[in-house]
Amino acid sequence: MHPDELLALMYRDVEPFIGEGKVANYIPALARIDPQKFGMAVVTIDGNVHAIGDAGEPFSIQSVSKVFTLTLALGRVGEGLWKRVGREPSGTAFNSIVQLESEHGIPRNPFINAGAIVVADTLLSGHQPKETLGEILSFVRYLADDNEIVIDADVARSEQQTGFRNAALANYMYAFANIHNPVEKTLGVYFHQCALSMNCIQLAKAGAFLANNGRLVRDGHSAVSSERARRINALMLTCGHYDASGDFAFRVGLPGKSGVGGGILCIAPGRGAIAVWSPGLNSNGNSATGTRALESFAKHSGWSVFGGPIR
Amino acid sequence: MHPDELLALMYRDVEPFIGEGKVANYIPALARIDPQKFGMAVVTIDGNVHAIGDAGEPFSIQSVSKVFTLTLALGRVGEGLWKRVGREPSGTAFNSIVQLESEHGIPRNPFINAGAIVVADTLLSGHQPKETLGEILSFVRYLADDNEIVIDADVARSEQQTGFRNAALANYMYAFANIHNPVEKTLGVYFHQCALSMNCIQLAKAGAFLANNGRLVRDGHSAVSSERARRINALMLTCGHYDASGDFAFRVGLPGKSGVGGGILCIAPGRGAIAVWSPGLNSNGNSATGTRALESFAKHSGWSVFGGPIR
Amino acid sequence: MHPDELLALMYRDVEPFIGEGKVANYIPALARIDPQKFGMAVVTIDGNVHAIGDAGEPFSIQSVSKVFTLTLALGRVGEGLWKRVGREPSGTAFNSIVQLESEHGIPRNPFINAGAIVVADTLLSGHQPKETLGEILSFVRYLADDNEIVIDADVARSEQQTGFRNAALANYMYAFANIHNPVEKTLGVYFHQCALSMNCIQLAKAGAFLANNGRLVRDGHSAVSSERARRINALMLTCGHYDASGDFAFRVGLPGKSGVGGGILCIAPGRGAIAVWSPGLNSNGNSATGTRALESFAKHSGWSVFGGPIR
Amino acid sequence: MHPDELLALMYRDVEPFIGEGKVANYIPALARIDPQKFGMAVVTIDGNVHAIGDAGEPFSIQSVSKVFTLTLALGRVGEGLWKRVGREPSGTAFNSIVQLESEHGIPRNPFINAGAIVVADTLLSGHQPKETLGEILSFVRYLADDNEIVIDADVARSEQQTGFRNAALANYMYAFANIHNPVEKTLGVYFHQCALSMNCIQLAKAGAFLANNGRLVRDGHSAVSSERARRINALMLTCGHYDASGDFAFRVGLPGKSGVGGGILCIAPGRGAIAVWSPGLNSNGNSATGTRALESFAKHSGWSVFGGPIR
Repeated sequence: MHPDELLALMYRDVEPFIGEGKVANYIPALARIDPQKFGMAVVTIDGNVHAIGDAGEPFSIQSVSKVFTLTLALGRVGEGLWKRVGREPSGTAFNSIVQLESEHGIPRNPFINAGAIVVADTLLSGHQPKETLGEILSFVRYLADDNEIVIDADVARSEQQTGFRNAALANYMYAFANIHNPVEKTLGVYFHQCALSMNCIQLAKAGAFLANNGRLVRDGHSAVSSERARRINALMLTCGHYDASGDFAFRVGLPGKSGVGGGILCIAPGRGAIAVWSPGLNSNGNSATGTRALESFAKHSGWSVFGGPIR
Repeated sequence: MHPDELLALMYRDVEPFIGEGKVANYIPALARIDPQKFGMAVVTIDGNVHAIGDAGEPFSIQSVSKVFTLTLALGRVGEGLWKRVGREPSGTAFNSIVQLESEHGIPRNPFINAGAIVVADTLLSGHQPKETLGEILSFVRYLADDNEIVIDADVARSEQQTGFRNAALANYMYAFANIHNPVEKTLGVYFHQCALSMNCIQLAKAGAFLANNGRLVRDGHSAVSSERARRINALMLTCGHYDASGDFAFRVGLPGKSGVGGGILCIAPGRGAIAVWSPGLNSNGNSATGTRALESFAKHSGWSVFGGPIR
Repeated sequence: MHPDELLALMYRDVEPFIGEGKVANYIPALARIDPQKFGMAVVTIDGNVHAIGDAGEPFSIQSVSKVFTLTLALGRVGEGLWKRVGREPSGTAFNSIVQLESEHGIPRNPFINAGAIVVADTLLSGHQPKETLGEILSFVRYLADDNEIVIDADVARSEQQTGFRNAALANYMYAFANIHNPVEKTLGVYFHQCALSMNCIQLAKAGAFLANNGRLVRDGHSAVSSERARRINALMLTCGHYDASGDFAFRVGLPGKSGVGGGILCIAPGRGAIAVWSPGLNSNGNSATGTRALESFAKHSGWSVFGGPIR
Repeated sequence: MHPDELLALMYRDVEPFIGEGKVANYIPALARIDPQKFGMAVVTIDGNVHAIGDAGEPFSIQSVSKVFTLTLALGRVGEGLWKRVGREPSGTAFNSIVQLESEHGIPRNPFINAGAIVVADTLLSGHQPKETLGEILSFVRYLADDNEIVIDADVARSEQQTGFRNAALANYMYAFANIHNPVEKTLGVYFHQCALSMNCIQLAKAGAFLANNGRLVRDGHSAVSSERARRINALMLTCGHYDASGDFAFRVGLPGKSGVGGGILCIAPGRGAIAVWSPGLNSNGNSATGTRALESFAKHSGWSVFGGPIR
């Protein structure tokens, strides 16, 4: 079926639910987002873009940024990264600190906050936060082929003013020598990467290389090796939705990474990347209608990685 | 590449490692297994069988049986099963009891011991263990198209004599009213299902429907719906290797379920089922060489669910 | 002040509260107890008995029995007991299993259920439950100087039929080789000791040796050494009320051990033993009015172990 | 027996052990302390001072300071303090963060680090750290009747530079709104109070009011009510030694509070206060020889709160 048809079918399924869930309200910049917003974009591996709803409106990608910083960090330090962060689902909430104690400051995976803070620390490695953030922004713009993407300084500032659990995580890992830069600098990078502002089209374009064996869909240039692309997808599938990762795999059947701004980036290997945005969150902190939309899209498209030959 | 070539390439990779790991020794019947054993079988969705090494020698499938009892139980009670067992990775060892306390007797997923005991309890539902075991055996024989498959009474007896942690789990869940039959009966079913004795060829044949949208590869008859097959695959990927599930997804990229007897059943949707056996276990209790063999096979075949278009 | 005056002052304080709390209802024999019951008895170290209210009516002493079995077990195996059970407050509920996993089957202290089951196992040590129970009963009768004390077979049977969390604990510890007898036998002893039926006067008499340097108040014969008496008192103070032990020490200031039947045995070293009974429990599972009564009695008497010279 | 005789007996017992244990080495100022140091002072409620060994040499009292800040905070905010900190033994190490997550930022008791940080926050309450520290110092000088007591600025600075786990705890509680002042200010107070430098004589004098119903032994003036003194003693007994509190109660039988500098303050209600110093720590982080010395002193003196009439 043509992607535009799939989007139409999906939209019919989810329309009655738009507005469900609870918009994140821990910072004003997120709290004032209209809960009725809904957009989805699909970028197939042939480079075509398909979109519906508010797919052109930027939102705060928040934790979806962890996919891009992980990719960048693996390019920088290679598989040695796994000495400082694990690859296992955590079985706990995004900001849990419990596991860090019994596992001596090594976060379970790069997609929980503690893990992403370690990844940010890796990228910083002695530089100034500004330089590192410049590098992250350049990388995302390059992947998305779009220089309009920005970091929302307002959101970053708000994050910094309320991010005490993240400060706790960073200090805790510093005590275990698993943060190497001054805590404030590492957190500075982390809070700003979470404030990346992108729309669904930009996000799907930026993620499409993961569906394409690591190659940019626009020109076939390799952003990462195919092996690395597969591994990042594997991590997204097992760890991308915190303690609802199993449920997302069960319902949607695709690697995905969610953010508290209501965005989710989903990868259908060999097919394309899907980005959805709907600000209302379910009880696990993932976009309620967004998850529903991806479940519908996966059902109609047969793109689940767990499906058989007729897909 | 032809599956026989893939098996040959894989064998060349793993041969130097055969014998590594530690054979399970908590019961005599397992402890005496020769650590040098190694076999693999692949059953493709066109029904062809490919095998190498000791693929024809039966071994105790242990926890791999959880895939079959889950399939049977879903057929019996449907999605209502998920009221009694979760679908999330546990982040803990196979026999952990900690999570049961904070989650009021609801196991995290059907592939940790506690979850599989609940599944067994569902199958029992007022019948005698003997009848239920007859039904499980018939189902596995039907899937594998092989009436020679048996339950090893010796192994079952040994399990029962040493299974005090499992008895603890069952009693604990009974206290939370999540075991409905007498604890001894439910455990009787569980201990016997784990004692199923199968060889790699039988195991791969029995699992092939999961790679084929739920249809038997020998005749296309539907064993389960394609949606259910996808969902079982999703659970195997996120939860099939206890607290090494993330690592297995990262390295192999296929849904899989391991057993302490050294067997692993792996599903490559749209391709086929792979069964491997090598008794030496790694520190997570999964077959050491078996995991290595599947990693090699996935690399050469490009069957990873996380790979892109050239697969 | 004379103990009878103290009892009168205390009674005036607590009378408005009699009936508060929730009577244990997990077995019929406890559920049908009249919540309006209230009794207290004080046995001073000169051997005098003072009583008020329903102090002559027998009730199920439940976990208060753990004081007597611990005393008996220390006499039998000596300080070696501490290899199999700890001496630290647990910070968790009476029937928690969580700590057992991280501490490899060694319960935190002898007053949580797991610890008391280990103590019962020590007493059993190869004998038949009947003999061991005979010995426990004889010991309690000897301490209380009262051969009318019995074990309520009805209660014991009910406990056994509902005690699945305790069965989980016992099986779990058996798996760690910290239960040495068959699980059913050890649990048989445990469930029966909890079914000891005593009234406040008997209970205070049975406990008075702990206030008297280990010597029976009736004749000065040594039941245990003064050092052992001090140590048992210390354990009662730090661990006698599960995860409300700190609060009990704070409010009452005396070593005490509570039971789910609504009884509490309290020791005032150098003064006497106090037994109280009021069936309604607070949210921690300790007698609500009983705790209040002891707080009042301690205040009026100045018997707190934490008080200064004017006491 | 006369206190001087008791000290002599105690010294004979512990002399062979002086130097055992491991001196805290996380900051240079502590690491360079001579492990052979040993001193003890006893201040009886009649105001007499008895001392032995290095009882006149100042050391870093560290966590022993928590007794004084708790006393001060209770005077300031009264029993309302217990809304922000619990009164139960933690069953975990001094710097554990695990419990804070499940209990929503409310520390278990005022003697673990998290609890003492809340207490410091209470004292700060909008003032500048300098003022609050002045107040703490004045209070300790007043209790000890000694204006020579100082805060070691060097130690405080080192604490601040290494205190990342404490920073994690403070940020974590701030996120739960259980720290009300800026984290740096609250930590500033906490790190400085821990750097109080006192000798055994000063420490025993400062603590003696707790043995004397809350009254200063030098003039009988009330520092706190007798009820509050009893309650602080109760907390010291149940929570004063982290996850070795039960063991200390068992062995010594007196309320006590230890510090990582090797000091312990012990209260014998109605008798006096005992301060001991020996820098080598046991595996629980409490003074090894210090604990031994108190055990010996308690045995010879019969001052255990759990003992009977002949004491």
